[in-house]
Amino acid sequence: MRDSRITLAHGSGGLAMERLIREVFLETFDDPELARLEDQAKLEFPSAKLAFTTDAYVVDPLFFPGGDIGKLAVCGTVNDLVVGGAQAQYLSCSFILEEGLGISLLENIVRSMKTAAGQAGIRIVTGDTKVVPKGAVDKLFISTAGVGVIPTGLELGMDRILPGDRILVSGPVGDHGAAVLDARGELSLTHAIVSDCRPLGPLVQQLLEACCVHAMRDPTRGGLAAVLNEYARATGLCLRIREDTIPVNEPVRGMCELLGLDPLYLACEGRMVAVVPEKEADAALAALQRHSDGLDAALIGEVTDSRIPQVILHTALGGERILDQPEGDPLPRIC
Amino acid sequence: MRDSRITLAHGSGGLAMERLIREVFLETFDDPELARLEDQAKLEFPSAKLAFTTDAYVVDPLFFPGGDIGKLAVCGTVNDLVVGGAQAQYLSCSFILEEGLGISLLENIVRSMKTAAGQAGIRIVTGDTKVVPKGAVDKLFISTAGVGVIPTGLELGMDRILPGDRILVSGPVGDHGAAVLDARGELSLTHAIVSDCRPLGPLVQQLLEACCVHAMRDPTRGGLAAVLNEYARATGLCLRIREDTIPVNEPVRGMCELLGLDPLYLACEGRMVAVVPEKEADAALAALQRHSDGLDAALIGEVTDSRIPQVILHTALGGERILDQPEGDPLPRIC
Repeated sequence: MRDSRITLAHGSGGLAMERLIREVFLETFDDPELARLEDQAKLEFPSAKLAFTTDAYVVDPLFFPGGDIGKLAVCGTVNDLVVGGAQAQYLSCSFILEEGLGISLLENIVRSMKTAAGQAGIRIVTGDTKVVPKGAVDKLFISTAGVGVIPTGLELGMDRILPGDRILVSGPVGDHGAAVLDARGELSLTHAIVSDCRPLGPLVQQLLEACCVHAMRDPTRGGLAAVLNEYARATGLCLRIREDTIPVNEPVRGMCELLGLDPLYLACEGRMVAVVPEKEADAALAALQRHSDGLDAALIGEVTDSRIPQVILHTALGGERILDQPEGDPLPRIC
Repeated sequence: MRDSRITLAHGSGGLAMERLIREVFLETFDDPELARLEDQAKLEFPSAKLAFTTDAYVVDPLFFPGGDIGKLAVCGTVNDLVVGGAQAQYLSCSFILEEGLGISLLENIVRSMKTAAGQAGIRIVTGDTKVVPKGAVDKLFISTAGVGVIPTGLELGMDRILPGDRILVSGPVGDHGAAVLDARGELSLTHAIVSDCRPLGPLVQQLLEACCVHAMRDPTRGGLAAVLNEYARATGLCLRIREDTIPVNEPVRGMCELLGLDPLYLACEGRMVAVVPEKEADAALAALQRHSDGLDAALIGEVTDSRIPQVILHTALGGERILDQPEGDPLPRIC
């Protein structure tokens, strides 16, 4: 099967589809709930508050330094759960495959999903596969949905942000967007840029154990600028950010200068923005920096009680400017 | 906005995407949990056994008699929950849109999802939107995932099927597959065929209240033949079916004769196959027929203790033949 290609029969509900599911998905994902092959997974929860989220993944190219569409489809959905304070538990995945796709390529992606799910501590328990004729989709898209348990008493959300709160970012921004752009091969940079794509669960856990957190987000499409603007609009408050405190890796900065891009608008896939009470800021920063995924975490600004909902950037040169919500991302198919 | 078209900016994480989400999705779906615009929905459950499922929808054309991709994306996932005995509660939806798609077309589909969700009693609580450049996807694909609650003590599944059990189908088979094929416009049939696409919750509820049920499935891709063969392989038992008892609508039968298709292999999107103990068969049939979605329900066969896992069709002409698992569906993009 590994030398062959996806045909329409692989999406047909018949024997060919069953072989694909057994040999590629079940064998790799290796979960008893998935292996039941019922139309739905059945999951036991104690009395629970659950988090539920979904994302579609259409990244181009399918493979990039630091990850691939499979790892991204697991990490992205896991991260949307954990920034809500949830422990990621169960994942569904639905594949849309183009007729003619190489099955060994699919297998590589499926294995990468399994590895990422193992790292994130999430089980892949249900799924679906569709095949469409050549030309109806570009190679392979994946949608994942995730369910997680929110611990009793943990309340996080934009509605908890208060004036005086401090804003932290867990690491350098823009790596993922820059890595995908670089992987398209239209540039010839000397230093390959590696995506930050990773599951955020352990880092978030360490932060939540160390201090009180008001809100968390992972800055994906639209980057840090989009998350900060969402916070400003949702709270009606002003966020003041100091440009020189925002970590940006050198190769990303170089690429941005070359192309006229702003790293604050580039997607991350393994970073988070946390808003914490002022008195918790030092503890939060220390907790992030103690984890290997947060070594470069930084305190980047604060929420002020100015009632103009906007993000003010104090530039490295000593000036001030409004950091706008992006109108449209210059980089389609980044995730 | 309604006169305009989808651009890459609508998938970018910026202002254009936010407008699309607010004006098209939030306004129509109108759910407070969705309107929080956090990365994840937060849902309260009492101590619960939950069902979790996902499907991708790639149907072509987007609109067909009896439904459209939006209605299908809600009903298909709801039905995968309810045939597991779950009460469908929460739905996620992720959209992959082609640059240039008409926004009014998208709005029609989104409204159709809202209507179907209302009928099915499910809330749309979280979602995602990606836009890809023209040519990277054919118009519009939707993936939905659903969460439902399984009542305490209710056990359903292929592992409960026993020799002697009776097999019922809730209505005529093949309408959906035939309707989509007809809607492609390559045939010119005098009677338009209408898809059976509908949520199965109320019918299933009525059945479960009336009798003990061992297993249920909705026969989608691969049709009735695929479900019966899955039962045979999963149980290691033989299923005997009487062809003349299987309800097939006349226009579907006519189209199948014309094209050399077998209605037993055509997809349904609003029918279910139920396996019940012999002594419950009459009560089950009566319960189905009492509901407007089950007027044409029929008892079509039984599970026998012959240990050859296969499906035997007793033909209308008095013969017997093996009803094979389909190798590949002749109709891609049927759902």
